[in-house]
Amino acid sequence: MNEDLYEAGIAMRRRVLGDAHVDASLAAATDFSIDLQEYVTKYCWGDIWNRPGLSLEERSLINLAMITALNRGHEFKAHVRGALNNGVSREKIKEVLMQTAFYCGGPAALESFRLAAEVFATVDAE
Amino acid sequence: MNEDLYEAGIAMRRRVLGDAHVDASLAAATDFSIDLQEYVTKYCWGDIWNRPGLSLEERSLINLAMITALNRGHEFKAHVRGALNNGVSREKIKEVLMQTAFYCGGPAALESFRLAAEVFATVDAE
Amino acid sequence: MNEDLYEAGIAMRRRVLGDAHVDASLAAATDFSIDLQEYVTKYCWGDIWNRPGLSLEERSLINLAMITALNRGHEFKAHVRGALNNGVSREKIKEVLMQTAFYCGGPAALESFRLAAEVFATVDAE
Amino acid sequence: MNEDLYEAGIAMRRRVLGDAHVDASLAAATDFSIDLQEYVTKYCWGDIWNRPGLSLEERSLINLAMITALNRGHEFKAHVRGALNNGVSREKIKEVLMQTAFYCGGPAALESFRLAAEVFATVDAE
Amino acid sequence: MNEDLYEAGIAMRRRVLGDAHVDASLAAATDFSIDLQEYVTKYCWGDIWNRPGLSLEERSLINLAMITALNRGHEFKAHVRGALNNGVSREKIKEVLMQTAFYCGGPAALESFRLAAEVFATVDAE
Amino acid sequence: MNEDLYEAGIAMRRRVLGDAHVDASLAAATDFSIDLQEYVTKYCWGDIWNRPGLSLEERSLINLAMITALNRGHEFKAHVRGALNNGVSREKIKEVLMQTAFYCGGPAALESFRLAAEVFATVDAE
Repeated sequence: MNEDLYEAGIAMRRRVLGDAHVDASLAAATDFSIDLQEYVTKYCWGDIWNRPGLSLEERSLINLAMITALNRGHEFKAHVRGALNNGVSREKIKEVLMQTAFYCGGPAALESFRLAAEVFATVDAE
Repeated sequence: MNEDLYEAGIAMRRRVLGDAHVDASLAAATDFSIDLQEYVTKYCWGDIWNRPGLSLEERSLINLAMITALNRGHEFKAHVRGALNNGVSREKIKEVLMQTAFYCGGPAALESFRLAAEVFATVDAE
Repeated sequence: MNEDLYEAGIAMRRRVLGDAHVDASLAAATDFSIDLQEYVTKYCWGDIWNRPGLSLEERSLINLAMITALNRGHEFKAHVRGALNNGVSREKIKEVLMQTAFYCGGPAALESFRLAAEVFATVDAE
Repeated sequence: MNEDLYEAGIAMRRRVLGDAHVDASLAAATDFSIDLQEYVTKYCWGDIWNRPGLSLEERSLINLAMITALNRGHEFKAHVRGALNNGVSREKIKEVLMQTAFYCGGPAALESFRLAAEVFATVDAE
Repeated sequence: MNEDLYEAGIAMRRRVLGDAHVDASLAAATDFSIDLQEYVTKYCWGDIWNRPGLSLEERSLINLAMITALNRGHEFKAHVRGALNNGVSREKIKEVLMQTAFYCGGPAALESFRLAAEVFATVDAE
Repeated sequence: MNEDLYEAGIAMRRRVLGDAHVDASLAAATDFSIDLQEYVTKYCWGDIWNRPGLSLEERSLINLAMITALNRGHEFKAHVRGALNNGVSREKIKEVLMQTAFYCGGPAALESFRLAAEVFATVDAE
């Protein structure tokens, strides 16, 4: 395993998704899931998210739109929280999702608005 | 028809996609396609793109990732040109597409790199 | 805001989805979601659904198939109820979903049959 | 092979897609493709399209919307021609595609309008 | 109805998905869902799964990857169990899902790992 | 850059896709596309394809089904050739695609049959 890439990935994951989320993921890893956790940590967080050229805020904006299009609710919610951690305001999250309404269609946007509101409610309750 | 929204939409389309593209679209409109042209102009360009809260550059970054996920090559190419017009550098376009490689998967990213390179070649030849 | 389009949209939404659904949606609107609610009401319900050329029943048939393909369960269920309100029989809903089995594939059809049955059970219990 | 289902399927395919299209498909069948041709003829055309409960016109309307969502241009064009053969007017085809603009998103609708216009041009030239 | 194809399909479904699953499906069939049950049993299980040329294990490997791409969690879980019944080890299931991480993207793979782990936990508790 | 992973990836790419394909890809790489080429070579070919647990033939079967579902024709064709190089017979390729007909739907399978036939014709002409 490329240790440097893994360490860089863990650090970036903690910064974006928060210690609570990452600690829970690491604690939940099993023999079955550990290889995927390493794959994601190294290649997504260690490589892509550490590339220069886009700010963390820009990467979050992109992910919210892209994961709405991909129709993956679980990851979408993680990245709503990530966007807040990266300094994206709720107002900007709303704007990204308004833009998905035209390009991805109404049902996609309605779903992402519901999921984002769930994340906001959870954050407000913490 | 809401004339104000339509006029605002035409102006924004011209600013983002360029006069040549918009003039060609308007000239090509037929009885069959005219209602969709108005729908897109008013609701996408007149409404969404004119909303405050995101810069035009941010809207372009979002679109490149989202339309890659949606697998719509024709619109993708139009928005590569739009991104350049909105001041997005080729380097930033590359970064957005690198990010799609992880989230949308390799085949999606490879296709968008090919299509973006075609747009760059066309722009360079003009 | 284009008031006429909004009012026409609210009326059509009430006609298709029912007063209970629309009242709940309006009551649940927040600063975060209000703009999307207006977007959907005006452009989908006020514009598209008010266009001549297709009956409400035909629009419902189309939506059931299209939203099955889009894999958006929440909206699908709303439009099963909308189809019933528009006079589409359960037998015709079944026929549309049988057709999705070939074109969208078995897993898509199986999911929509499950969701439609849930709506029928809810309606029967009311 | 279930001969009755196959014969019923060939007859329905000829009725909807036209003799020229079906003759070309049958002539082009190879050892590689023949099993799929039989699968499609029997289960789609022989079974689904021969079911009562929806008119051929309604089945065409559904297909145009559903195949737009599925992003399958080649089949979409075949079903534009099928819709015309089933008595769907160009005006109604336009209405279905306008409805996809909201639910499937703008890029999907724009693509289907382009493809439908290509079919109309081919039909007009025959 | 083609009785032979139906009987062959029921037998194959029982072999792959298990008697408990199939008995539950048959018991739950209603006037609304019975035609789809027959469609799936005959054409998928009776025809496709009974074709020579691929082993049942190979068909399971293919389905895990394909249904991950299709984003249909309910069917995915049924086919994780089917894969185990067909002799696919948990290690091989993991390998298939690792491969989806690159081609379908990270969010798709993460979801399928979660769903597969749920099936494993259910199987272990039986 | 992790050189070992890159070298392992180049070797696997050459083995599966052939020297001609890889030489052409490397020769065509530009400043714009080079990073994606490295990403794909290292993480897909160097990591995933080099993992034990599935044979190269099994990985090819999986890819044909998965990329059909993803609707990415360009990559699909590359992996038809890769499947042949990995010892998958045309008969087995046909069986995989027959299985996509039920799960991904008819339009997806028809497209993949067409694309596979194009690859076979190219191979036969070489």
